[in-house]
Amino acid sequence: MNEDKYIFTLEIEVRDYELDSEGIVNNSIYLHYLEHTRHAFVKQEGIPFGSLTREGLVPVVRRMEIDYRLSLHSGDVMLSRLWIERNGPRFIFHQDIFNKETGELVVAAVVTIVNMENGRINRGDELADRIAKYLEQA
Amino acid sequence: MNEDKYIFTLEIEVRDYELDSEGIVNNSIYLHYLEHTRHAFVKQEGIPFGSLTREGLVPVVRRMEIDYRLSLHSGDVMLSRLWIERNGPRFIFHQDIFNKETGELVVAAVVTIVNMENGRINRGDELADRIAKYLEQA
Amino acid sequence: MNEDKYIFTLEIEVRDYELDSEGIVNNSIYLHYLEHTRHAFVKQEGIPFGSLTREGLVPVVRRMEIDYRLSLHSGDVMLSRLWIERNGPRFIFHQDIFNKETGELVVAAVVTIVNMENGRINRGDELADRIAKYLEQA
Amino acid sequence: MNEDKYIFTLEIEVRDYELDSEGIVNNSIYLHYLEHTRHAFVKQEGIPFGSLTREGLVPVVRRMEIDYRLSLHSGDVMLSRLWIERNGPRFIFHQDIFNKETGELVVAAVVTIVNMENGRINRGDELADRIAKYLEQA
Repeated sequence: MNEDKYIFTLEIEVRDYELDSEGIVNNSIYLHYLEHTRHAFVKQEGIPFGSLTREGLVPVVRRMEIDYRLSLHSGDVMLSRLWIERNGPRFIFHQDIFNKETGELVVAAVVTIVNMENGRINRGDELADRIAKYLEQA
Repeated sequence: MNEDKYIFTLEIEVRDYELDSEGIVNNSIYLHYLEHTRHAFVKQEGIPFGSLTREGLVPVVRRMEIDYRLSLHSGDVMLSRLWIERNGPRFIFHQDIFNKETGELVVAAVVTIVNMENGRINRGDELADRIAKYLEQA
Repeated sequence: MNEDKYIFTLEIEVRDYELDSEGIVNNSIYLHYLEHTRHAFVKQEGIPFGSLTREGLVPVVRRMEIDYRLSLHSGDVMLSRLWIERNGPRFIFHQDIFNKETGELVVAAVVTIVNMENGRINRGDELADRIAKYLEQA
Repeated sequence: MNEDKYIFTLEIEVRDYELDSEGIVNNSIYLHYLEHTRHAFVKQEGIPFGSLTREGLVPVVRRMEIDYRLSLHSGDVMLSRLWIERNGPRFIFHQDIFNKETGELVVAAVVTIVNMENGRINRGDELADRIAKYLEQA
């Protein structure tokens, strides 16, 4: 994975209520961070969440792969970065979270998203047009 | 508070992901338990949540008072009990959570709910009719 | 409640995963915002959370009163403000959350905190010394 | 994946506060269900969570793959099932969640867990002994 591929970076600070009984950020919270990062990205592109490109087109997570490398603790700040690949109707978000202070990779995720329209998978051409400049073709 | 007043009891088991970094159930989780108990109650009465008595009538929490007496830990089972008082349009849920094993009071809450209809407070007569047998008049 | 009393303000942005099935911030999430604000305050004062003033002294929420006035939605930014009153061993955090854009009061909370030390309530003098300049005496 | 492989099944009911703004169970909540199921399994085996076999041995999630097939809604009941494979120090939990009423597969997950001891990966022989009868060798 080439660091140059990243097209978006969001800084997020750990909040104490995100820690679990072991004093580290709970595994499930990373899904929140990853989702929050994707939303911040499409928002930056002027694509309001919930109606990715127009009414009735809904982005849905189909598959998620997450490698948990290191933990985050109270007060840690992370850099949540992503790049996107298109494979037919599937938009594959490569999302990596780094500890800002140490630069170490904390979590590496690959999130596959499709666009649903009236219960069926949409080809995704509208979304692809909107973010064409960022897309790697698979 | 007279124990005989309780009209509904739900048994709930603590799940490990509800613990915070101090190894006890996080304060915010009790709001989930309390809400879950109210939903289970109205469900038992045949009142589906979200449309308390008919389309467009939405129950809304207006005020909450919570006393935190004791903590719950991994594996604990609680008895979540309630009784209801009506004060005009306000339905006041008195909700107490006990540690099932020790019988001790863990959390005592008073939750004030009103029914909203098209953005305005409804008098609540329909709901009152549905649960009349359980209502204490304030 | 005099607006001039506020001694600390934190800006917080709603994240989409904090919305519930009605598309508004879930009631329980406000407890996270309130806790996060208190932690940010003590952090600013150089008091690390978890050991408020020294090892073994643990702040515990004893009682919470929350009035829910308005809702927050996706993308909303809030101003979370607080002032503190001392009443013997009890530290009473008056915490109000405003919609930054409209200036409207969203949530008004009164949170009572005591310091526990080895399972007993501490008089709280150490904490009071640390934040003396901010304390209203009840 | 052969249905006969399952060695443990837990019935879990969706709680309304687990729904997100689209009215379906939020993706991150499935991590809670999966964790809760693993804990229930080791508890049934008499292995208390947190100290899988003895003091100092801590199970850690290293990798997670989740396929989201269908959604769960308010009131749905799921059957959360698992079987386990060992591959050296890695314990691979194959976890599938079914809608109890329809029998349909909702989520299919593969969760890789290692045992950490004093910051290093343990070979996992103790855990393997405890659950030997259930283990598939990879």
